[in-house]
Amino acid sequence: MKLREAGENRLLAQLLSTLSRHSSVVLGVGDDCAVVRGPQRDDLQLLKTDCIVEGIHFTATSPPALIGWKAMARPLSDFAAMSGVPQFALVTLIVPAERTLDWTKKIYRGLEKAARAFRVVIVGGETSNIKGPAVISVSLAGFVEKRRWVSRAGGKAKDELLVTGRLGGSLRGRHFKFTPRIEEARWLTKHFPIHAMMDLSDGLGADLPRLSRASGVGFEVDEHAVPRHRGCSVCHAIGDGEDYELLFAVSPKVSAELQRRWRKRWRLELTRIGRLTKAKSSPENWPAGYVHFK
Amino acid sequence: MKLREAGENRLLAQLLSTLSRHSSVVLGVGDDCAVVRGPQRDDLQLLKTDCIVEGIHFTATSPPALIGWKAMARPLSDFAAMSGVPQFALVTLIVPAERTLDWTKKIYRGLEKAARAFRVVIVGGETSNIKGPAVISVSLAGFVEKRRWVSRAGGKAKDELLVTGRLGGSLRGRHFKFTPRIEEARWLTKHFPIHAMMDLSDGLGADLPRLSRASGVGFEVDEHAVPRHRGCSVCHAIGDGEDYELLFAVSPKVSAELQRRWRKRWRLELTRIGRLTKAKSSPENWPAGYVHFK
Repeated sequence: MKLREAGENRLLAQLLSTLSRHSSVVLGVGDDCAVVRGPQRDDLQLLKTDCIVEGIHFTATSPPALIGWKAMARPLSDFAAMSGVPQFALVTLIVPAERTLDWTKKIYRGLEKAARAFRVVIVGGETSNIKGPAVISVSLAGFVEKRRWVSRAGGKAKDELLVTGRLGGSLRGRHFKFTPRIEEARWLTKHFPIHAMMDLSDGLGADLPRLSRASGVGFEVDEHAVPRHRGCSVCHAIGDGEDYELLFAVSPKVSAELQRRWRKRWRLELTRIGRLTKAKSSPENWPAGYVHFK
Repeated sequence: MKLREAGENRLLAQLLSTLSRHSSVVLGVGDDCAVVRGPQRDDLQLLKTDCIVEGIHFTATSPPALIGWKAMARPLSDFAAMSGVPQFALVTLIVPAERTLDWTKKIYRGLEKAARAFRVVIVGGETSNIKGPAVISVSLAGFVEKRRWVSRAGGKAKDELLVTGRLGGSLRGRHFKFTPRIEEARWLTKHFPIHAMMDLSDGLGADLPRLSRASGVGFEVDEHAVPRHRGCSVCHAIGDGEDYELLFAVSPKVSAELQRRWRKRWRLELTRIGRLTKAKSSPENWPAGYVHFK
């Protein structure tokens, strides 16, 4: 079978089904970051790697500083999803030999800018030649306090579903310029019990079912409540992907107070879009987001 | 300027010259692993990422299980260079959509086999499509006890230079099947003060000058003492690269005792090839190993 037919989720599931387990691994493959027991008892260590590929995630004419920003901001967004604190980055640049040094330097400037904005130190670099498209891969290490760690799996029936910012239309340029919601996520877990959280990278349509599946519940969404960027239809907001906003589930008991205090603290919008339900089935015709390899 | 003309060392030096420093970073770019202060006082955290690229490090006809082994074993060898204990791996597979699922699974089996052999847990996986050559990138996290950590920088004039195994001829197949010298490195730092150490990835010709520069000393090598694989000339042994053997420097006071105890413990050869010198210059005509991008 060709990968084209298999799809990324199925591929990962097959590859990872036989991986050895280990007592120090709290959460392995399948959530936003890997979670392992750190040497200090109150913290969990978080590890995440993410790559972007020319011709898939950016083009030869994309501004290199923005390519660099995006390459660093994507795994940062996964840290936000778990309320994690990123600390150290390793950067792999795979660039064809005919590309200019100037282009490569600009990519690095973008990587550094995003790292600095979130107090991340780039501690390792590697470069390699390739006879083909450029690839930029970033690995992050950091931590989260045990009591503040949020996965996709803690959602409960009747929890309200909230989403930060607005969705849709990322390909018009926002997918290069988004801000990982690390500070917002840290604020959320400092003040409220967040049951489940993730960042929206493949679009609400593909990502929400992942959260609900991981939590063992179903969901209902008021599609017209989904906050949309200007000029975006509901379909775009749900299906475009690369929003890098936070989607999270909280008890209906704290939802109103959370929204009230959020509005005092942040300019960024926060919208209630639906709730988790006892029935484990998704709404019929729930649209799927972007799926790799298809 | 094109990367082809810049060369990897120069590229990295330029890219990384402006990186921000941080008090928790013990050793950043430029040695085998990045070294950061862990939360536990007696350990240092080690981070390393490494990638292999189709058409550069392997070909479309290379056996996929061996490609996977190599992708994991290379960063493991960097851990060996620092006497580190690898714990967790993140794997990035970038594969064209027309490649088969079977090929990709075999790569993963090779990755897993190498991970298991060194008690490393694969905690994260990512896949991406590419319209070009396949890329496999592995990031490792682990630790080393502060008093057992070895960098390239601690060599002293008059130290003896020792090398494990034999060198040269790796392209005949050994570059796919080598064993990272993690157990040997752990044994060395448990029993002896090792001043400086590295793994030979680009060949003794390119790597030894790096160790001597980092240590601020010069070196002398008895070229005919360099242990060679069968059928290899001195030039091959020094220049081929991808040996993944350990090169290390120890005081002449412990060298004989170390070699004696080594022979009792290990089948693997250990050879004295020269020494570090006060003069900071390299021997004239010292051959350079493999340099990327050229």
